[in-house]
Amino acid sequence: MEIVRPTLLLDKEICMRNIERMAQKAEAKKLQFRPHFKTHQSAQVGEWFREFGVKSITVSSVQMAQYFAKYNWKDITIAFPVNIHEINDINSLASKIKLNLLVENKETLTQLSKFIKAPVGIFIEIDTGHNRTGVLPGKTNLIDTLLEIIRANKRLDFKGFLTHAGHTYQANSRHEIFNFHFDALLKMRSLKNRYKKDWPDLIVSMGDTPSASICENFEGVDEIRPGNFIFYDLMQLKLGSCRFEDIAIRMVCPIVAKNTSRNEIIVYGGAVHISKDFIINTAGKKMYAQIVVKSTGDEILLSEKSYLSDMSQEHGILKITYKDFHLFNVGDFVDIIPVHSCLTANLMGSYLTNEGEVITTSRNETI
Amino acid sequence: MEIVRPTLLLDKEICMRNIERMAQKAEAKKLQFRPHFKTHQSAQVGEWFREFGVKSITVSSVQMAQYFAKYNWKDITIAFPVNIHEINDINSLASKIKLNLLVENKETLTQLSKFIKAPVGIFIEIDTGHNRTGVLPGKTNLIDTLLEIIRANKRLDFKGFLTHAGHTYQANSRHEIFNFHFDALLKMRSLKNRYKKDWPDLIVSMGDTPSASICENFEGVDEIRPGNFIFYDLMQLKLGSCRFEDIAIRMVCPIVAKNTSRNEIIVYGGAVHISKDFIINTAGKKMYAQIVVKSTGDEILLSEKSYLSDMSQEHGILKITYKDFHLFNVGDFVDIIPVHSCLTANLMGSYLTNEGEVITTSRNETI
Repeated sequence: MEIVRPTLLLDKEICMRNIERMAQKAEAKKLQFRPHFKTHQSAQVGEWFREFGVKSITVSSVQMAQYFAKYNWKDITIAFPVNIHEINDINSLASKIKLNLLVENKETLTQLSKFIKAPVGIFIEIDTGHNRTGVLPGKTNLIDTLLEIIRANKRLDFKGFLTHAGHTYQANSRHEIFNFHFDALLKMRSLKNRYKKDWPDLIVSMGDTPSASICENFEGVDEIRPGNFIFYDLMQLKLGSCRFEDIAIRMVCPIVAKNTSRNEIIVYGGAVHISKDFIINTAGKKMYAQIVVKSTGDEILLSEKSYLSDMSQEHGILKITYKDFHLFNVGDFVDIIPVHSCLTANLMGSYLTNEGEVITTSRNETI
Repeated sequence: MEIVRPTLLLDKEICMRNIERMAQKAEAKKLQFRPHFKTHQSAQVGEWFREFGVKSITVSSVQMAQYFAKYNWKDITIAFPVNIHEINDINSLASKIKLNLLVENKETLTQLSKFIKAPVGIFIEIDTGHNRTGVLPGKTNLIDTLLEIIRANKRLDFKGFLTHAGHTYQANSRHEIFNFHFDALLKMRSLKNRYKKDWPDLIVSMGDTPSASICENFEGVDEIRPGNFIFYDLMQLKLGSCRFEDIAIRMVCPIVAKNTSRNEIIVYGGAVHISKDFIINTAGKKMYAQIVVKSTGDEILLSEKSYLSDMSQEHGILKITYKDFHLFNVGDFVDIIPVHSCLTANLMGSYLTNEGEVITTSRNETI
């Protein structure tokens, strides 16, 4: 396929290497590997995981579970607090596959217990510091209440405690990732110890991409659910979760204008392609992406002084250093690494692999 | 249709009123009305414009032009600098409809002149202060060069000068919008005066939503191209381009969790639904959306102290004042007005109208 407009390139080899590394790590540490498929949202990319023995997956919505169930995934955790309004779709899924759900409050669990029609696994979500959703580990009264409701309904099978230590994404150093992870680990382990007498089969499920990528201590953890690691991105590179050569995706954008007085190039590639997630660069400016160039045969990431500084719906504005400005001309293509690959993949809805294959995602499909 | 998950509601009546108001304004000021369809991206919504005599439209990409051409729009301006790599699609479109293109540099225009196979209208894009793309009005040497290339090719028909005064979106007051608009107007008018001797039919095309909504002076302007005005949004409300009752869209999101210690409610509705465009609220915080509630029968916008403060892929976190916290409970739905309706519409890909009709966009279609 000839590239004529903003295109999301996917390096399958790098993906396979990233999956293999994580699968091996899980195996070495005796962890169930339940990768999160919200990053790629693609049945075809999903197939790549099967080579490494993956049979159970994580998704972030009921619709995503429906999509992957259609592609023969039989063991799915929806790692998002149950939205009771979707009970019909939940019941329909639960009658077909092994479905695990997440609860974190009494109101929803009570409703779920009332309306559930098929067996489902239930994880209680624990907030280990991310401050998004989940029960605080100290609130054992609430946990006890939830467990009572679960125990009273034979269709509800308590699986264990699940956390997403997403605050690692805001870490300022690798060291901080280790700290956040260890802190979360202690909290989860203490819950496991407290409840394992009554629930001997309960598991602990953790594993955001930063900690799953760099941490080594998973004592007491039974399952990991990283997702972003298959692609990685600029945010992960900055965090130190991956190396440049582990990043499997990039956007290729045509240069449509060049502004010499502002040292800017303008590409076809904007907020509807890349997404408006940014990080703050060393100069204190919003940075939406960084640029890849060839240098003496090798690919390198240009310094942060050249970066995607702004976007409209279809335009991207790249600030370029004076030194490198001559490298970019109208009609050329520029390769950029976005800050957050999950959101870029969600917007683009398809990939072009380095083998020339076009791969689609759930966006292109009515379930 | 029963609402069970994040849904984009569209009030057709408000849309019709917004279109009518703008169409009447254009007529009163003898302006060609060429609305921008990038906001709604929907063939069905496009049909609503026909009732007001609209026959010519603006889009922001070649693919969007292909989509609307399929739905019988015969006069389309692609208001994005030509990306020469799309020349095959451009030629194919130009052979079927009246197509206008935008150029702002010699490199692209030279290539376009070489490869164009059917007649197209050409606008020269002028940068009147937005600092994105376009020729600065003072660079008449460059304009002369571009006009020479256009004149030399009978397939290229010079239409005139086009600008997007998008810096009005960054205005701090209505007064500043008036200033930006008037400044842009003067620049465009002076170009018109300079070139009308040689090109008596040239037109001036302007009209971002803020200035098209509130400014009255369009002397010397021939065409306006606002897009966002059909829906408006929180950004336009803040700018003073519209009133609350002119906003035609809102997201409806299920509440899945409630955190009493942080005064937060967590909704199903995140970055893949709403988009990460934000404005800074009065407290200096990022605000991605504001909340609509019913109060003694009427709908009102809650103060900025209650707002969408953060999002992950599927989660939205709403900070709520202590006073209003009791209004929101797990299992309820919350209505929110997003900052930027174009990006939300692009992500959602469909609308539910207040008449219960589901309307789709180009996202759901392969062209």
